[in-house]
Amino acid sequence: MEIKIRKAEKTDIPAILELIKELAEYERAPQEVTITEKQLLNDGFSNNPIFEVILAENSEDVLGMAFYFYSYSTWKGMCLYLEDIIVKNKYRGNGIGEILFKEVIKKAKEKEAKRLQWQVLDWNEPAINFYKKKLNAVLDGEWINCKLTEQQIKEFKL
Amino acid sequence: MEIKIRKAEKTDIPAILELIKELAEYERAPQEVTITEKQLLNDGFSNNPIFEVILAENSEDVLGMAFYFYSYSTWKGMCLYLEDIIVKNKYRGNGIGEILFKEVIKKAKEKEAKRLQWQVLDWNEPAINFYKKKLNAVLDGEWINCKLTEQQIKEFKL
Repeated sequence: MEIKIRKAEKTDIPAILELIKELAEYERAPQEVTITEKQLLNDGFSNNPIFEVILAENSEDVLGMAFYFYSYSTWKGMCLYLEDIIVKNKYRGNGIGEILFKEVIKKAKEKEAKRLQWQVLDWNEPAINFYKKKLNAVLDGEWINCKLTEQQIKEFKL
Repeated sequence: MEIKIRKAEKTDIPAILELIKELAEYERAPQEVTITEKQLLNDGFSNNPIFEVILAENSEDVLGMAFYFYSYSTWKGMCLYLEDIIVKNKYRGNGIGEILFKEVIKKAKEKEAKRLQWQVLDWNEPAINFYKKKLNAVLDGEWINCKLTEQQIKEFKL
C-alpha cells in the first residue's frame, strides 16, 4: 500500500471528525464526543490555530491521523503535545501509526521543540513497550490527571 | 495584605523567570531550568503567544503566578491547561495559590474552555485533597506521561 503523508486542510474536517468518532465507538464512549465540525474549523484552521493534524492516506481513503498542539514547559520552553494518533480500524497492522509517530517527531525537530509529550493508559502494554523499546521514551507514572469539566467551569462560583 | 491580580506583560519576564527558578531550587532541580528570558519573550509575548501568565502582586512585590496555555481534546474541543501555579516561598500560606487558581477558572469560563486540566504528583496529598474537596475536580491516575527529550528529538533517525 502506498501511503502519502500531508498536513490536513479545511476540507479534511469531515474525515478528521469521522476518525475521532470511530475511536470513541471503539472505546465504547461515542456519547463523549461533543466536538463539531465548526469547532474544528475555528480552532484548527483559522489564522491562529490551536492544533494541527497530519494525515496518512492512500489514493482512495484517509487511513489515519496524528493530532497535536503546542504545549509549554516552564523549565524548558515550547513543547509539542501529541494528543492522538488514530488509524482506521480496517487499516491497522500496517505500520501506519508508526509512520505518523515519526512524522510528529520530525515536526518536533523542525519546530525545535524542547520535548515531545504524550500519554498512554497504564494497562496498554503493547503501546508502552513500543514507546520504551522502539523510541527509548521517558515514562513517568507519578502524575495524576486532574480536570474540571465544562459544566463545572460554567457553574463555578467566583 | 492587599493582592492585585493582572495579566503579565513583557516587563514581567524577569519576575516570571525568578519564580520558575525559585520553584526548581525548592524541588532541588535548578539545573533542569534551561529556559531563557528570550524564549519567554518570543513564546509568550509575540503576536501569537503559546502561553499566558496571571500575576498576583502587592504594592511592593510579585507574589506568585499562574502559567497556562490552550490545549485540545479531540472529543471536546479547546481546553485550558494549567502548567504551574507558583507562589514565592515567603508569601505562602496566605491563600494566594487559591486566588490564582480561581482566576484561571475565571479565564477558562471566559474562553468557554471545554475543560480545565492540570496534573498533580501522586504523593502530594494536601494538593490532591484541595482539588477533590474544594474544587470537586475529576482525578484520573490511569495515565502515564511519556516524553522524548530535546536531545532525543534532535538525534532521532528519521
